[in-house]
Amino acid sequence: MPPAHPFDTSYLRDMDDGDKLKEECGIFGVIGVDEAANFVALGLHALQHRGQEAGGIVSHHPEHGFQSARRFGYVRDNFTSQSVMETLQGPLAIGHVRYSTTGSKGQTAIRDVQPFFGEFAMGGAAIAHNGNITNANALRRELIERGSIFQSSSDSECIIHLMARSLQRTIPERMEDALRRVEGAFSIVAMTRTKLIGVRDPLGVRPLVLGQVGDGWVLSSETCALDIIGATFIREIAPGEMVVITDKGVESHFPFRPRKPRFCIFEHVYFSRPDSILGGRSVYETREAIGRELAAEAPVDADLVCPVPDSGTPAAIGYSLASGIPYAMGIIRNQYMGRTFIEPTEQIRNMGVRLKLNVNRALIEGKRVILVDDSVVRGTTSRKIKEMILDAGAAEVHFRIASPPTAWPCFYGVDTPQREKLLAATMSEEEMRDHLQVDSLRFISLDGLYRAVGEAQGRNDKQPQYCDACFSGEYPVEPSDQIESGFEMKPAAE
Amino acid sequence: MPPAHPFDTSYLRDMDDGDKLKEECGIFGVIGVDEAANFVALGLHALQHRGQEAGGIVSHHPEHGFQSARRFGYVRDNFTSQSVMETLQGPLAIGHVRYSTTGSKGQTAIRDVQPFFGEFAMGGAAIAHNGNITNANALRRELIERGSIFQSSSDSECIIHLMARSLQRTIPERMEDALRRVEGAFSIVAMTRTKLIGVRDPLGVRPLVLGQVGDGWVLSSETCALDIIGATFIREIAPGEMVVITDKGVESHFPFRPRKPRFCIFEHVYFSRPDSILGGRSVYETREAIGRELAAEAPVDADLVCPVPDSGTPAAIGYSLASGIPYAMGIIRNQYMGRTFIEPTEQIRNMGVRLKLNVNRALIEGKRVILVDDSVVRGTTSRKIKEMILDAGAAEVHFRIASPPTAWPCFYGVDTPQREKLLAATMSEEEMRDHLQVDSLRFISLDGLYRAVGEAQGRNDKQPQYCDACFSGEYPVEPSDQIESGFEMKPAAE
Amino acid sequence: MPPAHPFDTSYLRDMDDGDKLKEECGIFGVIGVDEAANFVALGLHALQHRGQEAGGIVSHHPEHGFQSARRFGYVRDNFTSQSVMETLQGPLAIGHVRYSTTGSKGQTAIRDVQPFFGEFAMGGAAIAHNGNITNANALRRELIERGSIFQSSSDSECIIHLMARSLQRTIPERMEDALRRVEGAFSIVAMTRTKLIGVRDPLGVRPLVLGQVGDGWVLSSETCALDIIGATFIREIAPGEMVVITDKGVESHFPFRPRKPRFCIFEHVYFSRPDSILGGRSVYETREAIGRELAAEAPVDADLVCPVPDSGTPAAIGYSLASGIPYAMGIIRNQYMGRTFIEPTEQIRNMGVRLKLNVNRALIEGKRVILVDDSVVRGTTSRKIKEMILDAGAAEVHFRIASPPTAWPCFYGVDTPQREKLLAATMSEEEMRDHLQVDSLRFISLDGLYRAVGEAQGRNDKQPQYCDACFSGEYPVEPSDQIESGFEMKPAAE
Amino acid sequence: MPPAHPFDTSYLRDMDDGDKLKEECGIFGVIGVDEAANFVALGLHALQHRGQEAGGIVSHHPEHGFQSARRFGYVRDNFTSQSVMETLQGPLAIGHVRYSTTGSKGQTAIRDVQPFFGEFAMGGAAIAHNGNITNANALRRELIERGSIFQSSSDSECIIHLMARSLQRTIPERMEDALRRVEGAFSIVAMTRTKLIGVRDPLGVRPLVLGQVGDGWVLSSETCALDIIGATFIREIAPGEMVVITDKGVESHFPFRPRKPRFCIFEHVYFSRPDSILGGRSVYETREAIGRELAAEAPVDADLVCPVPDSGTPAAIGYSLASGIPYAMGIIRNQYMGRTFIEPTEQIRNMGVRLKLNVNRALIEGKRVILVDDSVVRGTTSRKIKEMILDAGAAEVHFRIASPPTAWPCFYGVDTPQREKLLAATMSEEEMRDHLQVDSLRFISLDGLYRAVGEAQGRNDKQPQYCDACFSGEYPVEPSDQIESGFEMKPAAE
Repeated sequence: MPPAHPFDTSYLRDMDDGDKLKEECGIFGVIGVDEAANFVALGLHALQHRGQEAGGIVSHHPEHGFQSARRFGYVRDNFTSQSVMETLQGPLAIGHVRYSTTGSKGQTAIRDVQPFFGEFAMGGAAIAHNGNITNANALRRELIERGSIFQSSSDSECIIHLMARSLQRTIPERMEDALRRVEGAFSIVAMTRTKLIGVRDPLGVRPLVLGQVGDGWVLSSETCALDIIGATFIREIAPGEMVVITDKGVESHFPFRPRKPRFCIFEHVYFSRPDSILGGRSVYETREAIGRELAAEAPVDADLVCPVPDSGTPAAIGYSLASGIPYAMGIIRNQYMGRTFIEPTEQIRNMGVRLKLNVNRALIEGKRVILVDDSVVRGTTSRKIKEMILDAGAAEVHFRIASPPTAWPCFYGVDTPQREKLLAATMSEEEMRDHLQVDSLRFISLDGLYRAVGEAQGRNDKQPQYCDACFSGEYPVEPSDQIESGFEMKPAAE
Repeated sequence: MPPAHPFDTSYLRDMDDGDKLKEECGIFGVIGVDEAANFVALGLHALQHRGQEAGGIVSHHPEHGFQSARRFGYVRDNFTSQSVMETLQGPLAIGHVRYSTTGSKGQTAIRDVQPFFGEFAMGGAAIAHNGNITNANALRRELIERGSIFQSSSDSECIIHLMARSLQRTIPERMEDALRRVEGAFSIVAMTRTKLIGVRDPLGVRPLVLGQVGDGWVLSSETCALDIIGATFIREIAPGEMVVITDKGVESHFPFRPRKPRFCIFEHVYFSRPDSILGGRSVYETREAIGRELAAEAPVDADLVCPVPDSGTPAAIGYSLASGIPYAMGIIRNQYMGRTFIEPTEQIRNMGVRLKLNVNRALIEGKRVILVDDSVVRGTTSRKIKEMILDAGAAEVHFRIASPPTAWPCFYGVDTPQREKLLAATMSEEEMRDHLQVDSLRFISLDGLYRAVGEAQGRNDKQPQYCDACFSGEYPVEPSDQIESGFEMKPAAE
Repeated sequence: MPPAHPFDTSYLRDMDDGDKLKEECGIFGVIGVDEAANFVALGLHALQHRGQEAGGIVSHHPEHGFQSARRFGYVRDNFTSQSVMETLQGPLAIGHVRYSTTGSKGQTAIRDVQPFFGEFAMGGAAIAHNGNITNANALRRELIERGSIFQSSSDSECIIHLMARSLQRTIPERMEDALRRVEGAFSIVAMTRTKLIGVRDPLGVRPLVLGQVGDGWVLSSETCALDIIGATFIREIAPGEMVVITDKGVESHFPFRPRKPRFCIFEHVYFSRPDSILGGRSVYETREAIGRELAAEAPVDADLVCPVPDSGTPAAIGYSLASGIPYAMGIIRNQYMGRTFIEPTEQIRNMGVRLKLNVNRALIEGKRVILVDDSVVRGTTSRKIKEMILDAGAAEVHFRIASPPTAWPCFYGVDTPQREKLLAATMSEEEMRDHLQVDSLRFISLDGLYRAVGEAQGRNDKQPQYCDACFSGEYPVEPSDQIESGFEMKPAAE
Repeated sequence: MPPAHPFDTSYLRDMDDGDKLKEECGIFGVIGVDEAANFVALGLHALQHRGQEAGGIVSHHPEHGFQSARRFGYVRDNFTSQSVMETLQGPLAIGHVRYSTTGSKGQTAIRDVQPFFGEFAMGGAAIAHNGNITNANALRRELIERGSIFQSSSDSECIIHLMARSLQRTIPERMEDALRRVEGAFSIVAMTRTKLIGVRDPLGVRPLVLGQVGDGWVLSSETCALDIIGATFIREIAPGEMVVITDKGVESHFPFRPRKPRFCIFEHVYFSRPDSILGGRSVYETREAIGRELAAEAPVDADLVCPVPDSGTPAAIGYSLASGIPYAMGIIRNQYMGRTFIEPTEQIRNMGVRLKLNVNRALIEGKRVILVDDSVVRGTTSRKIKEMILDAGAAEVHFRIASPPTAWPCFYGVDTPQREKLLAATMSEEEMRDHLQVDSLRFISLDGLYRAVGEAQGRNDKQPQYCDACFSGEYPVEPSDQIESGFEMKPAAE
């Protein structure tokens, strides 16, 4: 049933959404501290860039049982007031921020906001995930046939129903049982009355890290959310690992058949925050290294290196340091944007990117400018930025892109346009340059990107070290539901 | 999981709630008209007295599928605006208003607001009920054991899960299958993509009527809701009957073992609107007849007959007509009450009934006054009204109550205080008179009430014609869940 | 500057507004009690029928100075919560409820909500009024010429500006000075830091009463608002009197030239609550007496006397008692109406009076029915009610109206349609009967009405005892602003 | 009367408010375009950094007259929707964003939100200002004595009342008349039905620029707001100039006695946006130049130059370019902050700056870090940042501040702590270094700052080229109201 719900949440989206890939979720969980939900709220605030549309927290208190709150909007606006937080008690809590929705025509009903909760015969469990279950539609059909009633369009609910029907006894055993039926790329935090559980899919596509705070334990999508609560970063959850954390400590399970890891390379490029650490590497330094690679691969004579704010900044700094061309803020971001406008007037709608960015006119005039951006998706923003820069009197505009051409959609928990909307799906680099009408346009090579993330030999084409499906079209997990809906994979021969 | 939800709905309750029995729900459904949800909204507005806390509508449109909206507050405030109603399209819709909740500690989560929707293998169905399933807890435990995940604390959800697991093929067959597992006193409206379904429990405790509007059909808790949409009253659904209405017409099923009907006698006294017709009798005229019976059973020499507004009005008119003592509005109701106050100040809280009622001082002064009320539940309001009347200078105060002493809680979809809170559970009529400190207090006899509703011979004690458990303690359906929770039935010998 | 304000308050109006005269304001003030604003909130709640659109309270605390809150909506919803009331401290407070606005095209800006506050050289004063200043436009023009800046379209503001510019020293002296420039029909409550002030215009058109509560004093539009706070009714403020109340007691001033009183007779018919006392008479009993007069003046053979709820009720009871024809509730009011719908759908809009009233079908069928209503303004509601009654199968419909034909607009603080919209302005009683298509239609005579309010000789045409301009067209205060805007007075010869 | 208003606007403030000087207002006006208010909304959005608490727009339409809307919160949230903007019609509009309030104990009532409107004998005028009238209290007292009624605590209202009482005929003449009574540092935009008026105080302390868009004219606090609407920057309004713009063009008046200009030097340091042009200089380039000056004045051996985001960024880039020490983002700002939390829990409150900033741990560890910030006000933030950097393992921390020590409050429209709260008011540079416990702390010299803004010879102490009272204690306009309230000026001898 398509939800007829009270809030039009479309205003929570950035005006340039169509022109960025967007991570769909951030997850966080804490056990063994006083008022765990407070920690979760802070952690989710630090993970807000992974999902700005809605958030939810479930906690468990020995006396009051499970408690939950789910809201549209920012963590900051929903999960900081006394009145809400005092309804989320106890030493154990998990939380979730989400960007958008799977399947519900671009709108989220509050019932689709995670964590998802289910009452089993042996007690309740809550679960939240980041990523995507690629056989969710098939599983859902099967479960409905058997008499399960779904209440949301969330993938997490499949796992809960599989667990409810499992023949195993304990919740962790039921979860292992359920996970073996599930395909996809996902990280999970879950909780029972006494356990915090974390899972990473066999390929480890989506991130999940373990931290320690006082006597308690933390699970988080990124390390930057450990920092905000003063937790110590212990290690990443291993691909295919399931950790069950109780007051006795952390126990590891490996429910899946072992596979070679394929971490999402785009987390390094854009999704993760620059102050997080991924695979032992500072994201900021990786992005600076991408800029240095770009300067080596695609040098150009110019007066200024300017980032497209804010995501292009570290790569622009790297490009400047490697090339010796001065770094400057040629484009200023209006810090009062972030969400788009509600029912805007015609005139506002037409403003587009000018509401958000302004050219530093006096600086740019007469200069040859290198603009560094993280990616080109549909190309609409790039084109408008180019026009603004030229209007301001720049002599030349050179685009340098900190990722290879995005030619394929991601089906692993990232909001991507349909393939035909991706500029690189239909145009060569040369054609894109003509389309954008800039003096030059260069993307980092796939090998260059692999080098920047630490693979000195570049990409191993036989056995790629990362998931780079959005660039290469090689999907490490078959997107079954998508293929069923008509998506055409890249021919093997290609 | 106890819901930690955003709205404190307690303000939606009347300040005198504790002192009235409250019907918990009204239901309404329409098939075969344009924009069926508009009719449902009007019908629910007319049934608002049966549930003021929240309301919901589900509709089905051939193209857009099932659509729903559920809101706290009045129908008038939620289901009349263009923007909401245009999301509820199609020729088939059902709706529900509810007063309070079963089991959730006095607060309703929005997910407990009906109609309840479930997706089955052969398509979806929505369901709403008025009444109570007396073995809901046991059914729920059994279903959870088998792996069903509940999303609400609503009884309706048991029926949906039973249907989801039924081995039968069609939805009506599955519903029959499910209903055979269910005990209690309830009326149901349900819908599939093409069918409107109505069910009344085997005893016919709760009302449900059938009407016709243009080429379409209507199901409603009361006839007053047929009037508002200009529908013609056709007949009551029979106790134990299940009607399945399609564009081919109305089909009758009788899934239950036949039993003698036991319609709720309190619907005549208080729950139903005076302009409804129950069992072929005008509710208003029945109440006037109760007043006449009372005048005959419990005459008293006095100057004025005054109703306790508004529910005592028809009985007071009857008493006046039978006794010849002039009828007068001795107590004036403030029409701007209806809901209570949000976080009231101490002083406001202490005002109690004075916020709602004021004595017509100039009229009352020096007079011997007969006050006619519909019932005495906890006696708190009666006591305050007595004080107000005496403060205003009345010479004598005589209470006449249009129902027998309410000595037992109702477990069939009515919000009643626990037994020990009922004044009549612990006191005789004489003791209540002393407690209320009035010059006289008389309740209509149970036989008198039966006569007023048309049973010339009064109550048939061997085979009572109505459910009168709240007066007699004789429960026609065993309240299993309640007994499990410690409720003590009246000893058989009593 | 026409206000561009955030709330469309039109939804606060009854759907039948166009068909009732509406009192525009209620006023209330208290001095000498703890937390005076709490008393004012309760008083305004009891006066809510005099103005449902908005309300305001100003209080004064020796330490915190003047405090105020002004809100759209019901008193109950705005002035009962701890959080609002704790911002309104001190032993002295005044308040105001308003129905609609003068001059602002049917919408009220929050700045037009009274009480109005001004800071003078010798301290601040707040003021609220009920009624109308008939030379407000001329005064306003004069004040603007002299350099006063108006912030609202409220008449009260003229008085504040006149006071600010007065050459007198004390605030009461300045108020006397200001009042001498003012023409119209109004009652005023005002306050300084230490004084509560009440004023009634020279003719005493609008009501104002004095009460005592503990050691404190109360001013109120009606006595029913004394009851709610447990205050004792002392006396009416005399026409032309100004009372200045301090902790030393009540002091009387008479700033105006003495005139014969002309109290508004329509307060008896409709505006005041039935449990109020006006001119020493119970409003309820007056209305019952009107019914008795009507029965004598306009008898008819019939089966039932039914009120048009709720305002026709006392007169219907009187008619029944005098005629011996049984009283019955033939029309039931839906108690969940009261305000109209927001942006209603087409279908809802077309429902009109059916959303609010339903015929008690079973009772009416085949009967000859007398319908008693308080007044006929535009006749639109009367016509719809007649249709509903006939649809329900009534054999005959006889209208009896508890006031004479309303043929002239009121300019003294009452919301009336323009003269050409008044049915009685263009039709005789006979023509109205034909227009409404009823079996008979009779209004009480003007003399009959005067008798019912206690003038045994009827109306003194040379020197009418009341203001009855709405019936007679004889305006006791010249409506200067209206004449300036083109209103044509009744020719003297008529 | 202290306002008892519905919104607690304190949540609109940054959590670090106490530690930044804050410009109090931005102003914008347009004449001669279709739907002028749309332009004003866009302009105010670009000026949002000058005032985040509330905004207002007044427009004038030949047919509908003056229209206005005033709201708390961001321009983006209030002035972009169709429904609001269609109430602001016509070719002429002015607007205002404000940060905080003068005199109302830290809270703004909606009536204090500008533009302020007044109706005069010859028509209405609206006015908005940025800055402060230093003799406002005295003027207000005088006006109240004469009988003016004030409705707000805004300085602008003094000007309106002076204009209302002026003996001159036209509104521009009356404004000149009024301005001659006014002392202070302010820029004004005002409008009549046909004229857009701009004024800058005689010293030109606050900025105001003139632009052209199509056939229309624009007044704005900064040039960055011309860019967003595509307007061309024409020139700055001269100190002491009043421009009156009609459809005939721009007319200049000079109502004040000529004085040497004293533009606010802090606009260059912090208040203005980096993409604005002030006094013919790019703000960004000035800030970069400040960084270069700082590198020359206060060099230090280190590994990284990091800005305190976002205001320290251009100076950090300049420092890096001049020193050759690599620039890096050592501190990452959470872009979902900006406003503080509503009723935060204890734990949230204690988080302070960590909610907003996180150290880029992997980058900082073991490094000697130069932190560049724009200013030090109370020092609380600087201290917390230092702790975070050291916690992350930095080897050394060196603070470089892009302005001289802030030792004096600003009384010209800037929100500054009281003098004793300013760190530099009670400590020498050395003491501040010890207080902050950093390895070194250096402020740019006052001469260095003058050089960076283009005064090659540095500051002319006899006749300073700028207002630098916050650094020097030399106030170019006597802060009369403040002195009256007890503020002690720096002794002349000092």
